[in-house]
Amino acid sequence: MTNHHVGSDNIAKLSTPERNLMSEGFLARTHAEELKCEDLELLALWTIEDVTERVNAAVKPEQSTADANAARRQAMAAIETEAGQASGLDCEVVTLWQGARYHLYGYRRYTDIRLVFCPEEAAAFFGGDADNFEFPRFNLDCAFFRIYEDGHPLKAEHHLIWSKAGAKESELAIVCGHPGSTQRLNTVDHLKFLRDMEEPANLANLWRREVQAGTFARRGEEQERIVRNELHGVENSRKAVTGIMAGLLDPELFKAKQAAEDKLRAAVEANPEYRAQWGEAWTQIADTHQKYRTYFHRYGALEGRRRAIRADYFAIAKTLVRLAEEKPKPTGERLREFRDSELDTLMLELLSPAPIYDDLEIARLANGLTTLAQTWGADDPVVVAALGGMSPQARAEQIIGGTKLKDVEVRKQLAEGGLAAIKASDDPLIRLAATLEPKTRRLLKKYQDEVESAEVDAYAKIAAAKFAIEGENSYPDATFTLRLSFGPIKGLQQDGATIPAFTTMGGTYERMKARGGIEPFKLPQRWIDGKDKLDLATPYNFVCTADIIGGNSGSPAVNTGGEVIGLIFDGNMQSLIWDIAYTETQGRAVCVDSRAIIECLRKLYDAGGLADELTKPIGQGLIGRQAPL
Amino acid sequence: MTNHHVGSDNIAKLSTPERNLMSEGFLARTHAEELKCEDLELLALWTIEDVTERVNAAVKPEQSTADANAARRQAMAAIETEAGQASGLDCEVVTLWQGARYHLYGYRRYTDIRLVFCPEEAAAFFGGDADNFEFPRFNLDCAFFRIYEDGHPLKAEHHLIWSKAGAKESELAIVCGHPGSTQRLNTVDHLKFLRDMEEPANLANLWRREVQAGTFARRGEEQERIVRNELHGVENSRKAVTGIMAGLLDPELFKAKQAAEDKLRAAVEANPEYRAQWGEAWTQIADTHQKYRTYFHRYGALEGRRRAIRADYFAIAKTLVRLAEEKPKPTGERLREFRDSELDTLMLELLSPAPIYDDLEIARLANGLTTLAQTWGADDPVVVAALGGMSPQARAEQIIGGTKLKDVEVRKQLAEGGLAAIKASDDPLIRLAATLEPKTRRLLKKYQDEVESAEVDAYAKIAAAKFAIEGENSYPDATFTLRLSFGPIKGLQQDGATIPAFTTMGGTYERMKARGGIEPFKLPQRWIDGKDKLDLATPYNFVCTADIIGGNSGSPAVNTGGEVIGLIFDGNMQSLIWDIAYTETQGRAVCVDSRAIIECLRKLYDAGGLADELTKPIGQGLIGRQAPL
Repeated sequence: MTNHHVGSDNIAKLSTPERNLMSEGFLARTHAEELKCEDLELLALWTIEDVTERVNAAVKPEQSTADANAARRQAMAAIETEAGQASGLDCEVVTLWQGARYHLYGYRRYTDIRLVFCPEEAAAFFGGDADNFEFPRFNLDCAFFRIYEDGHPLKAEHHLIWSKAGAKESELAIVCGHPGSTQRLNTVDHLKFLRDMEEPANLANLWRREVQAGTFARRGEEQERIVRNELHGVENSRKAVTGIMAGLLDPELFKAKQAAEDKLRAAVEANPEYRAQWGEAWTQIADTHQKYRTYFHRYGALEGRRRAIRADYFAIAKTLVRLAEEKPKPTGERLREFRDSELDTLMLELLSPAPIYDDLEIARLANGLTTLAQTWGADDPVVVAALGGMSPQARAEQIIGGTKLKDVEVRKQLAEGGLAAIKASDDPLIRLAATLEPKTRRLLKKYQDEVESAEVDAYAKIAAAKFAIEGENSYPDATFTLRLSFGPIKGLQQDGATIPAFTTMGGTYERMKARGGIEPFKLPQRWIDGKDKLDLATPYNFVCTADIIGGNSGSPAVNTGGEVIGLIFDGNMQSLIWDIAYTETQGRAVCVDSRAIIECLRKLYDAGGLADELTKPIGQGLIGRQAPL
Repeated sequence: MTNHHVGSDNIAKLSTPERNLMSEGFLARTHAEELKCEDLELLALWTIEDVTERVNAAVKPEQSTADANAARRQAMAAIETEAGQASGLDCEVVTLWQGARYHLYGYRRYTDIRLVFCPEEAAAFFGGDADNFEFPRFNLDCAFFRIYEDGHPLKAEHHLIWSKAGAKESELAIVCGHPGSTQRLNTVDHLKFLRDMEEPANLANLWRREVQAGTFARRGEEQERIVRNELHGVENSRKAVTGIMAGLLDPELFKAKQAAEDKLRAAVEANPEYRAQWGEAWTQIADTHQKYRTYFHRYGALEGRRRAIRADYFAIAKTLVRLAEEKPKPTGERLREFRDSELDTLMLELLSPAPIYDDLEIARLANGLTTLAQTWGADDPVVVAALGGMSPQARAEQIIGGTKLKDVEVRKQLAEGGLAAIKASDDPLIRLAATLEPKTRRLLKKYQDEVESAEVDAYAKIAAAKFAIEGENSYPDATFTLRLSFGPIKGLQQDGATIPAFTTMGGTYERMKARGGIEPFKLPQRWIDGKDKLDLATPYNFVCTADIIGGNSGSPAVNTGGEVIGLIFDGNMQSLIWDIAYTETQGRAVCVDSRAIIECLRKLYDAGGLADELTKPIGQGLIGRQAPL
């Protein structure tokens, strides 16, 4: 079970112009009808071990922060490789409290995942960007996939069961999921860097991508289909960062952060031993960001979430170029995503036969080259080389027209051929990636040595200070790893009104009517035809105060008996600042109610079989009941 | 006669939730039904006089470029005031060839303008952003207004007549209109500044505004209505700047510009007298932009086309604050838009009762304050003062909720009360504008002294060098003043296909069908019902090679007999680079065919009376035939 919007990347990849699963939805009536996802893997956390001492033992006292960071990363890779070989699990060392603790997580990995059911996007994402991050909501944002092992549906040892009664107001909801990242340990100076540099740059990049994806979509129906998923992703991120920006510009937030920081620093200063060990950490963070500012934009255009070129084929070429450079190194000295323990995942993506569309790739590459030129200046040698004496559009047409990377076999040969094959390749995309790589790597190294290492070092100190002074009762920042969170189901006060915790299925029809029934408030025909079959009083979406963040999408919400009562799919606008600080005044996590899922499966989607499978009591030996993803 | 998209600002202002002229169109069947525009003025050029010598005589040889610029501007203002008093015309000194010549233009000014006819936006802007700047096209982008004088329809001394036969392929089209600005005299270094700084910043600003206007529109039907016009304007600018950027990133353009510049500079260097007079000009431009870079973004967030805060009420407050400061000064020392000769226009806008919408103003102000914080850094004193210890959203709600500037009478009192009234005002918008004004003025002065003055000085030298070496046969850059342009009606080659010069009315139905009949390819119901009444072979839109640029929208196109054959409403993508350099390989101006206007008026809009008025032969004494606007 996950959200439609989490599965939509794969739902879109399984779609064709003739069978658009995004607009039509999908139901497999038999196992044979289930659709295999080309490049999806699922990981289930199986073991956790504290390896802090072993990681830190690799660092010598006299090392610079950059060398210390490299030593730690080598140690982490060695631990992962060793544990992976011993256990057969996918092993990853997770950095907690930004470096105060290191835990080794072992995952079971599944790669045969098949689509069982998804509703129409018009039902899953009813209200679109307008209602996104808002409440009240009316979204059937769910999808069901099935895990296969050795060609057969997985018989899971452990799995959740469905609540019969569902949830009610004030009941405790427990959420288990993989929140992506929070920045609650950040110093005030670091938050100012986010506020004045990082988030404004993220927003500017998202505005660009939203407009460019939107104009591509307006070229025609097929273009709209192939870019729709990206567009929704960008809109979602843009709204999220807008919310974070609004929080960062709230002076109350900074007052509270400043007061907490002042108190902690005063306590550190008051103790000579503490001061000697940890006193410099805050200045260290400030200094490092001062340095980072000088190449922040240029680095961002080449690497990371603000990278200029977002063509899929370019990503493949860049990975191939990097793989050739990284693979000969010992695993601990490689970039993190090229470690032995990550290579299976990497190859799955690299060799995916999922469709890539030439005209979208040309648009993305032309836009990317233009952005690169705008950021670096068009006379910079790196831009001149990238453009090869042509305009961005002409260059993009030439490169996408000429690349052989469309052929998965060619990618495989290049991946296996190593550095020699890359050097010998005259593929225009490989050449473009190879042209940009040296500059990218220089800035990446500079970033890792100057910023990442200093942050790890300084935050480990700050966390240690917090542990010593405030105790170990605060949980670490989110790291895309499993977290249990909880909070009561509870409405909120907003604009002077009380918003109840639950909406009903009837409400979705009212909202459609109020908004004139035009997209994105136009329910699928199935919903209009089937309205009379539904119990319109069925609870549809609800809110609780569980501490979630981006990455929690698709997390099951269970009651104190461990039974499924809902499915996290969003947070409201006031929850976005939870990235920085948690408050439960107005911030809420938003769930699909488990009762609405069953009601829709049975009465609208003719999916009684799936509803039976989900709701049958435990121990009835159903095939394919899976562990929570 | 003008374009729908030129008149749409006023068409939108004349609309209400109950009578949406943008979606329904409008026809006045009698003069009494014509709708008066609240704040529209029309200027008709009446006289031209060369005043170059008088302007330059004001400059003393020993003056700095900043002082020389100030002296020139004082001279220009004095000339305007004197000529305006003598002639009763609206007088303006126009800077041609960026300072090589100064001409005094005298305009007749009309302020009683009434809407006679406009089609539905779905017909005028058929194809929306997707088809904008493209050809083939199918747009009835026209609207008719009538000028009144002393409460009666104007009896124009001179006016155009309508062509009976219309135009055909290869015929010469002559276009008279007011192209806004071109930058063809620019040095290569200046073009690089445009390419690497100015246009990227313009694009980033437009991306922001497009996303923000779009998200506002998605809040509901009424919100969509009130922001629609702004959204279309931003989309249009974004597409235009995207086209210019694409041209600027074409290495061929720079090669040609560089070759021309090298040739001119070599000729200057070869002549000791020329070298002494003009030889430094190119370095002067380069140096000045180097300085400008250091405050380019911060200045841009406060003033000009990239200004962060775009709320209408804020613009009113800023104008009132400035007016109080400027009015006591001699006219020649004021900012240009506060000169005596401009004050009527300024007051017309300032005291316009046109509707302004609070929720849109709050969104604009909150977005503007956020952008200001992102550009200056939220800890900058100017941002701290602007936010007043609140978040941008809370601050915007407080300010828009509290301002009295919604009342035109309050604006009038503040305008008349001068500096004392402004200082005494506790209106939150006046206080916000007054808070930002000192910093804005300091940077504006810095910009005028360092950049504008140096450009005027250097480009006057470069133009003089060009006149001396290449002769006076190149026309000046566009300045929003009247220009006659011409070129044959001619199709083009694009993507390997020949695109004919004309489309037909039948083509619009085919395009609607091809695009599934969904917005923006959904014709108004009137068009669907009336299809059988139309002669579908009627020429609809056509292209010619006349040199136009933004500002030419609404220009009549006439044949060699001076008869109206069409109405300019757009240029294609390949014409956008005409801002920098003119080529007729693919660049085209796009017109509505005069025959389509008549066909639609008679057969779809039941506007035979207006069609008769337009097409009756000259000299038949019709009331209300106006001069071209």
